Amino acid sequence: MVSHERLAAQFEFILEIDNLKNTFRRNLILHGERYENSAEHSWSLALMAVLMAEHAAVKVDVVHVVKMVLIHDIVEIDAGDTNCYDVEANADKVAREEKAAERIFGMLPSDQRDMVRELWDEFEARVTPEARFANAIDRILPLLQNFQARGKPWIKNDIRVDQVRERMAPVREGSAILADAVAEIIQQALDRGYYLPAQAPAD
Amino acid sequence: MVSHERLAAQFEFILEIDNLKNTFRRNLILHGERYENSAEHSWSLALMAVLMAEHAAVKVDVVHVVKMVLIHDIVEIDAGDTNCYDVEANADKVAREEKAAERIFGMLPSDQRDMVRELWDEFEARVTPEARFANAIDRILPLLQNFQARGKPWIKNDIRVDQVRERMAPVREGSAILADAVAEIIQQALDRGYYLPAQAPAD
Repeated sequence: MVSHERLAAQFEFILEIDNLKNTFRRNLILHGERYENSAEHSWSLALMAVLMAEHAAVKVDVVHVVKMVLIHDIVEIDAGDTNCYDVEANADKVAREEKAAERIFGMLPSDQRDMVRELWDEFEARVTPEARFANAIDRILPLLQNFQARGKPWIKNDIRVDQVRERMAPVREGSAILADAVAEIIQQALDRGYYLPAQAPAD
Repeated sequence: MVSHERLAAQFEFILEIDNLKNTFRRNLILHGERYENSAEHSWSLALMAVLMAEHAAVKVDVVHVVKMVLIHDIVEIDAGDTNCYDVEANADKVAREEKAAERIFGMLPSDQRDMVRELWDEFEARVTPEARFANAIDRILPLLQNFQARGKPWIKNDIRVDQVRERMAPVREGSAILADAVAEIIQQALDRGYYLPAQAPAD
């Protein structure tokens, strides 16, 4: 497309990741009757990072969080969005996403391929303060959206409150303030019947 | 929704801007037969900023560019996406967007309202190196997408090459390398009949 080789590779990558706009998640967008795609989800997260990094458990490098959330879902172009509550689909998730990362990040000039790959590995490993905070907001956003949608996607998929609590547990690693807010929202959703109550323990 | 007042305002803002996912642009997404929304467009731009800031005319603060492109279209939630080739619609664009900025940014805690407002003013003024670079990528992305879509949105709207050239002229303020690439792409698109040739001068 263009004669500047490095720029040509960058353009190809940007056109390739347009495909993330066709990768759909399990939650609805607000004020719309359609599922959210992973590109627009990542945009929301990037803005959450900018605005809410002040609540992180330990001081985080905001730029680093922003970069991580911008790229964290790109592998879904090949690997699809794996439902966090689907045990079977999660079994080969790592292998599918690994292959996707090789192909898609591999389109970039090698230094940028490595940079993006390191960001993705860091996000997945959930060890650094930045990765923990990025994972926290990645979990909170659909909670907010599902709450606002009166629990529609939860009800549709028979999600129980204990599943949501388990999914949200890592938020505390990223931010105590956000984790307290999550607990409040979960309780309100339960009071309003937005998902099934916890499974009764077997006798 | 939550008792932490500052966080509650931030959550409300994040839920409000979900509306940008329902604001549609004039270009198609790749590999899909639908128009792009301004939220997913902003995500692409943020990644372009991260990957291509190295080509900026003068060294830019990447974080600053990223923040600017993440928020630059939010006013469209109220003001709509104004077609860059529609002279009439552009006449009251400033007033409509000004009102939108007041309302939407005003949902944030005052320090963050001011921060976002300053970023938006800076983007619109196109004076700082960061704003010039942000504007450059904002213009290039739909060029790439329309080229990849074989000029479909240009043909549909009877766009002439001189209109595209005029729209792309400010790219050079942001980056000579990107401007040279744009000139190459415009020429290729013209050779392939992706839009109408320049209007013949009146006799």
